[in-house]
Amino acid sequence: MNVINIQEKLDLFTDQWSPKKIGELNGQQILLAKIQGEFVFHKHEDEDELFMVLKGQLALELRDRTVVVNPGEFFTVPRGVEHKPTAKEETHLLLFEPLSTKHTGDVTADITVETYEDL
Amino acid sequence: MNVINIQEKLDLFTDQWSPKKIGELNGQQILLAKIQGEFVFHKHEDEDELFMVLKGQLALELRDRTVVVNPGEFFTVPRGVEHKPTAKEETHLLLFEPLSTKHTGDVTADITVETYEDL
Repeated sequence: MNVINIQEKLDLFTDQWSPKKIGELNGQQILLAKIQGEFVFHKHEDEDELFMVLKGQLALELRDRTVVVNPGEFFTVPRGVEHKPTAKEETHLLLFEPLSTKHTGDVTADITVETYEDL
Repeated sequence: MNVINIQEKLDLFTDQWSPKKIGELNGQQILLAKIQGEFVFHKHEDEDELFMVLKGQLALELRDRTVVVNPGEFFTVPRGVEHKPTAKEETHLLLFEPLSTKHTGDVTADITVETYEDL
């Protein structure tokens, strides 16, 4: 039971596309991620996933449109919806999702991380 | 499926101690609240509750200590733990908790709100 300072946690890592776990409650996890470039299209069959932007800009490609999320904003990708996170500049995200959520959902790619480091 | 801008949602209300719902996923809800002064001691038997500070300062009284949470920080009160939110100046919070969570948990007070308005 500690106070978590988000910026202090962000300062602890530099690797991109590798979410770090900073909290857990009610079967959900809170992750931080730094991203730049393009991820892969994937979906999570049973998990809704929230993307909150802390810095930079997230362009979340869906199959029918692209959603742009700026700092101070969030977007929730409903379960079953294919999405592909992209970011032109380095972008910092806070993610909220069930503990069971796999990094790249229904696909496996070079970028896939199996487990998330605790910060 | 819309992008939610947190500040725009905060600008929509002024009443204190009356959380507004701005999101829902995986059986959890995202609330915004403006608080100032003292709440009541209460606990949630089955729900962990996350308090993220957006503005101001939250002093979260527990039975054995007081936890101070500043902007950019969050604290999770585990289920079953008595807590009393207080704030000297107007403080803006983002809360994350299960949909089942009652406002004042195991107690009922004048301040209790039964349902949260959707924003």
